[in-house]
Amino acid sequence: MLRYSYKELISDLKEMLPKLKSQKYDTILAVARGGMSMAHILGESLDIRDVYSVNAIGYDDTKKLDNVRIFNIPQELKNSKKVLIVDDISDSGDTLYSIDKLLLDKYEDIQFDTYTLFYKSSSRFEPTYYSKEAKEWIEFYWSEQL
Amino acid sequence: MLRYSYKELISDLKEMLPKLKSQKYDTILAVARGGMSMAHILGESLDIRDVYSVNAIGYDDTKKLDNVRIFNIPQELKNSKKVLIVDDISDSGDTLYSIDKLLLDKYEDIQFDTYTLFYKSSSRFEPTYYSKEAKEWIEFYWSEQL
Repeated sequence: MLRYSYKELISDLKEMLPKLKSQKYDTILAVARGGMSMAHILGESLDIRDVYSVNAIGYDDTKKLDNVRIFNIPQELKNSKKVLIVDDISDSGDTLYSIDKLLLDKYEDIQFDTYTLFYKSSSRFEPTYYSKEAKEWIEFYWSEQL
Repeated sequence: MLRYSYKELISDLKEMLPKLKSQKYDTILAVARGGMSMAHILGESLDIRDVYSVNAIGYDDTKKLDNVRIFNIPQELKNSKKVLIVDDISDSGDTLYSIDKLLLDKYEDIQFDTYTLFYKSSSRFEPTYYSKEAKEWIEFYWSEQL
């Protein structure tokens, strides 16, 4: 088990910042809840006010391939041109795979890239950017009981 | 100018947690961007998966009273019963006043409460809960350049 602290988040975001800045995204879309803290901080440092969120809930009790329910797709997304989707981890990859597929189908003219803090090599979805490879269970600071 | 650190956020949320827990909210609605980090952490500690966001942009260039544009109201909010709206600060109060009014008009059967980290006594909107009174400019850690 690896504890991921607030300090590490800041350090990882700082390291990724120049790459993200050069891409001139106009919108950040956080996958709630996992991507919300990083979306908030990145929105400030990239000076992007259009920071939105989308919800995804995985169903563990079905055998379906795309067992993810995606909801609260922001209405204003239709006016974006270049969107950075952010989430804490691409673990199984089901969530990001489903969100990416749904948004690409729905908005053909929008470019969607993805950034996760962690990526598992066994994931079915590889994000455009990731900070670290996950080789064990990650305990993020925001998941710790207050 | 008062710097508001990550440690203070954790301490303020921890202090507020029992009160929020007792209210059994089913949904947290973050005002983006300011409320997103606290919504994320509160969602985890209150075990609320329905953490949504809404966008509000104030127009400084008009003399209108309600000069706030609110967008991306989450579609699934209609299924909530008791919603906690969170934002970093109730400063002029324009944003929260407008959001609260719009949501109360739109969803008559939903209870909306509000929690801000800071509240200015000159604000036109008093949140249900706030952690501290703001007597000077607050520099939140998430607004610092990475």
